Parts: sequence; structure tokens; C-alpha cells
Amino acid sequence: MSTVNRRKFLKTAGAGGAAAAAAATTLAAPAIAQANPKITWRQQASWPKSLDTRYGAAELVGKRVSELTDGNFTIQTFAAGEIVGGLQVLDAVQNGTVECGHTAMYYYFGKDDAFVFGTCLPFGLNSRQHHAWMIHGGGLDMYNDFLKTYNVNMFMAGNTNCQMGGWFRKPLQTAEDLKGIKMRLGGFAGKVCSRVGMVPQQIAAGDIYPALEKGTIDGAEWVGPYDDEKLGFAKVAKFYHYPGWWEPNSVSGFITNLAKYNELPAHYKAAIQAATMEATVWEMSKYDAVNASALKRLVGAGTQLTPFTPEVMDTCYKAAYELYAEISAKNPAFKKLYDSHKAFQDDAYLWHQIADYTMDSYMIRYRNAQKT
Amino acid sequence: MSTVNRRKFLKTAGAGGAAAAAAATTLAAPAIAQANPKITWRQQASWPKSLDTRYGAAELVGKRVSELTDGNFTIQTFAAGEIVGGLQVLDAVQNGTVECGHTAMYYYFGKDDAFVFGTCLPFGLNSRQHHAWMIHGGGLDMYNDFLKTYNVNMFMAGNTNCQMGGWFRKPLQTAEDLKGIKMRLGGFAGKVCSRVGMVPQQIAAGDIYPALEKGTIDGAEWVGPYDDEKLGFAKVAKFYHYPGWWEPNSVSGFITNLAKYNELPAHYKAAIQAATMEATVWEMSKYDAVNASALKRLVGAGTQLTPFTPEVMDTCYKAAYELYAEISAKNPAFKKLYDSHKAFQDDAYLWHQIADYTMDSYMIRYRNAQKT
Repeated sequence: MSTVNRRKFLKTAGAGGAAAAAAATTLAAPAIAQANPKITWRQQASWPKSLDTRYGAAELVGKRVSELTDGNFTIQTFAAGEIVGGLQVLDAVQNGTVECGHTAMYYYFGKDDAFVFGTCLPFGLNSRQHHAWMIHGGGLDMYNDFLKTYNVNMFMAGNTNCQMGGWFRKPLQTAEDLKGIKMRLGGFAGKVCSRVGMVPQQIAAGDIYPALEKGTIDGAEWVGPYDDEKLGFAKVAKFYHYPGWWEPNSVSGFITNLAKYNELPAHYKAAIQAATMEATVWEMSKYDAVNASALKRLVGAGTQLTPFTPEVMDTCYKAAYELYAEISAKNPAFKKLYDSHKAFQDDAYLWHQIADYTMDSYMIRYRNAQKT
Repeated sequence: MSTVNRRKFLKTAGAGGAAAAAAATTLAAPAIAQANPKITWRQQASWPKSLDTRYGAAELVGKRVSELTDGNFTIQTFAAGEIVGGLQVLDAVQNGTVECGHTAMYYYFGKDDAFVFGTCLPFGLNSRQHHAWMIHGGGLDMYNDFLKTYNVNMFMAGNTNCQMGGWFRKPLQTAEDLKGIKMRLGGFAGKVCSRVGMVPQQIAAGDIYPALEKGTIDGAEWVGPYDDEKLGFAKVAKFYHYPGWWEPNSVSGFITNLAKYNELPAHYKAAIQAATMEATVWEMSKYDAVNASALKRLVGAGTQLTPFTPEVMDTCYKAAYELYAEISAKNPAFKKLYDSHKAFQDDAYLWHQIADYTMDSYMIRYRNAQKT
């Protein structure tokens, strides 16, 4: 099928990328002829086991794929560092060290800035909107076209939702305050932070706390209250900024080695498609279920919840969109994804602000008023 | 497993209800011994085919289950009225006329008010929060315990997100304006509307337009811009109220006849679990992807977007929570689900208002300011 026809088919069939890929593969001679071959894959996660949110989503994918295939296709999950490190997942999947991984694709922006669209764009779409762009706005197809040169493909398999802005010893209130701040920050957003004078550092989850404790860094962000509480940041930094504008959502990406994926029978491919979509709901919901009580514990123990000021937000917003224009001018892969993402975004909040946002606003105001 | 142990197991395994059910069934002698038996089910949807959102989600469940089982377990989907009417899906699944259905469980509140928790509670949780309560807050397990007496079980299989407040010839601005208004309204929320003087009527999708056109009803709500545009309401009513406080989210429920479900091999049960969770993301995303452009077309053609006034919202909020207290006092099944839902809700917005809501607020304000 041509790209255009493939998109049309996807829209008509109302299915995700795997269905179309499966259909396309059926036409070719399958590499594995047996109906239910025994296949064992290894999944390298970017997360430590202690983070039962994102690591839990990775485990769910493996467990469900095994159940769906009556135990014939099993995926064993490994925590960060068990086979390779948390930031080497793409390389390991690309070169076949492992068949699949569970990671955040923006970690790999050093190879190409376009990787960011597999996770989220700073000041971009929220989690529901990002999923909508991916599934119904052509985003995931386009992204997997980009990934072909890396011999991998991606499925959405979790989302942290909007993250927190991180832990600091001193609050950041002005554009001037940002300058010289050394901060652990995941992925591509470091480029935006550099433009406003910060010194971003990408450090895997398990190594952040010692750096913050020693004062090697001035601040650190990971995800949100529940995960951050486990990593212990509150013990060494008092001010907890929000929102994490660099991650208005954050997709956990399940990536497979493309050659290995193409060898799978169609129903094993379908198992990956359905299990990863289940993990998407499961991880989003997990964060929504556990963050409130963690936040209460943190605030109870002395954490100061501190919103970023409009000055800080505006400074970073402008820096972000200037950066996107610059990258777009010289990187066609980034530009293609960015233009599609931006067109979708221009409409997304137009709808979101009407029903959902008005309802959320009412509920928050009414309930807060009742409590005071 | 006892109920308590079963919940514990679910939490530990980090899996949905079907996994536990599957584990429990494995212990019993399976009714179907063959590994991949040929099974054909019929799915009765509550929706007309023209609504490619909710009907599309029903079709996706059937299509994916078939793919996951290599074509051995097929589910054929029928539009409202093809086997039974859109509001008779529960009866048809319960009595085995069809094996499964795709519906909104609050339609059946006439049998028991507790049915409402399978869809949404007026002034209750938003879509992400409802999923979190269902999956990680024990909601779905508790709901399926309730459903056992009806010989059915439910899987979440779609969500409309927050709905619109409906179409009216005259805007509703005061508590007085609500009195005597005859309105098509889905499900349980009619009880709240009755308390504030409205005259609610439950009418299936395809029959709403003629009633509104003839003036049999003064107003009508269905879902939101994209679906409502197809149903043609804008042609006969100018004012489009929001938000739909009666549906801050709305789960599309996939229900199966429990006896038929229990006969399935474990991997066919897993196929239902994963396919329905995929449909959950797919339907939410579909609405987020298509509502903006529909809203622009409607407003361009003369629709007046009209928020409910604080007076109307507060009047209905109070009526809703008074109603829940009254029902709880006499209906233990309702009380059990309501208490769990309420405890979850008391924390849910405490978290939501921090990261996600602050980020959404910034994006909406910044982008609107840029455009004016």
C-alpha cells in the first residue's frame, strides 16, 4: 500500500499502526510458518524496578502478550542496568542485543531532535491530546516512518501525564534566577533550558539522588509525587515547582527491533498492539491513582509546593518555540513531525477548554471553596 | 480466592479484572478443552453505525479479538436495532440473546441506581480519574461484584470524555429557567434533573432529532460537537450549553454474558481484556481528535456556545449530592460503590489541580492571548 492509501485504510478501519503493518506483512511470505511458534523476547526497560509505575507498565506488556498467545510468545522484562543502562535501550534494540525495550524516546535526541515526538514536546500536547495526535492525527505512522532508519518501531505503552517541575533548594522566580542552574532534566527539554541559561544534565533515575545530595546539581526533576518520593529528593531539596512544562505529557514507548518484529505472525503483532495500548491506560491511571496521597505525604513532611511564576513560564515558552523554528529550518524529519503536531495542537485546546476544562475548573473551585 | 485476597492479588500483579478472573477460572475445569476452539459471538451495540466514535470502538473490540486469536474467536458487531434496541442491550446480554454488548451502563438505572457507576456520576470523576478509580482504586472489581446478579460482567471499552450540556432553543440561565424543561438526557442524571424541576426523557440516539424538531422536547444532549453535528441538533436549536455536568466522563462498557464468558479459554479472556482497553484509548482519542473541527463548523454556522451559569451549576451540584445521600441511605449496593468513588474523588482533584490543570490553564491562556 502507498503511504497515502495506508493512512486511508487506517482511518477507515479505525485501527492503530500494528493492524496495517500486520495486513502488509500477511501479503509477504511470513518468515515463521508455524501458526503458534514458541518465541522468547527480552525487554530492556529504562526504569529501576522500584518505580512500579513505568516499570509496572513494562511488566504488564510482557505479561499480557504471554497470556494473549497462550504462553507461546513470552517477553521477559529487565530493569535498567540488568542488560544495558537506562539510556542505552534504543541502541540495544537497534543492534538486536534485546528484541524490545520500554523507554522514553526523547532520551535519544542526541541522535536526532525528531526523537522527541515519540515522548512529548515541551509546551506541547497534554496526554490525551498526544494520544489523539498519535492514533487519529497520523502522528504515530509518521513517527514510525522516521524510526525505520534505526531499525525499530514504537508503540505507546504508558504515559506519566503532566509532570512536576522538579526539586530545588531555592525557588526559581525570575528569568534571572534560571541562569547557571545545574539541573537533572530528561531528554530534549534540556535544549530549551540551555537557551534560558540553565545547565541541563541527563541522568538515569537511580543516579539522580546522589548528584542532588552532593550538590553536583542544583535541582532535579523526575516525574511526579509518587515516583519522586521513592527517589528521595524531598530529603535534600525543599521547593517543589510545577508544572513540568517540559513534559505536559510523557509517553512510555515500547520499541521493537523492526527485523524481529517483521518475523512475528500477525496475531503476535496484534498482541503487542493491544497489550501496549492497555499499558497506556494502566500507567496513566496508575499515576492518577497514586500521586494524590504521595503529594499529601510530601507536603505534610515540609515540601513547599511552588508554582513557576508567569515570568519563568513565558521565558521558557518563547525559548521553546524559537528553538522549534530553528530546528525545523535545518532538520526535515523534525519539521515534518513538528508541523503535524503543531497543526493538531492549534485545534486541540480549542476543544479542550470548552467541556473538559470548564468542568475541571468548576469542580476544583467548588470543592476547594467547600473546604475553606 | 477470597474477595480480599483477590484484590490484593490484583494490586500485586498490577493487572485488570480479567486477569484475576482468568486465573480463577484456570483452577476450575475449563468447559472448552480444545486450545483454540472456534467461537463466534454477537455484540449488540447501543449506537447507530453513523456514530463512528462509539460504534467504531465496538467494532475495534470485535476486530482486535479476532486478530488476537488468529481468527478463532470472532465477534460480530450489530448496530442499535439490528437485534434489539439501543436501550435493551443489558437484557439481551443477560438472557443470552447475544453474548456481549457495547453500551452505557447508566441506561439501566431503572433496575438499580448502582448501575450508574459503570458509566459516570454527575459531578463525579473526569475520564482519567474514572479509569484510575476503576483500574487502581478497586472500582471495577466492586462493580463486577454488583453485576454478578445480572449474569454479566463489564470491561471499560471507550470514553466520550466530558460531554456538552446540550442543545436548547432558549438559554438556561437561572434555577427558575430549568423548571418544566423537557429534555432528552441519557441515564441516571435524569434523577438529578427531576430534582431541579426539569422533565428528563431517555431516548436512543436515532430518535432524538425528530422529538426535538417536533417540539416534543425543549432540549437534548447526546455527546459533543462531532456526534451532535451528525445527529443534526444544530438545525433546530441554537444554544449549545456546556459543560455536561451529568457526564464529566462517560465510559462505553463492553459487557459479556457471565456464563458464556466463564466458558472461554484464558487467552480468549485476555483478548477481551486487552482489546477493550485498547478501545478505551482509541475512543477517548477519537473524540479529542474530531471535536475541535466539528465545533468550528457548528459555531461557523450560527451555534451559540453558552456556558451554564454558576447559579445553574451550583443548583444542580447540590441536588446531585443530596440525591446520592438519599439513595445511599436505602441502597447498600449504591452506597458501597458511592463511598469508594467519593473517597477516590476527594483526593483526585487534589492532584489534578497541581500539574495537569495548571499546565492546561497556562496553555489555554497563553494561546488565547496570542490570538487576540
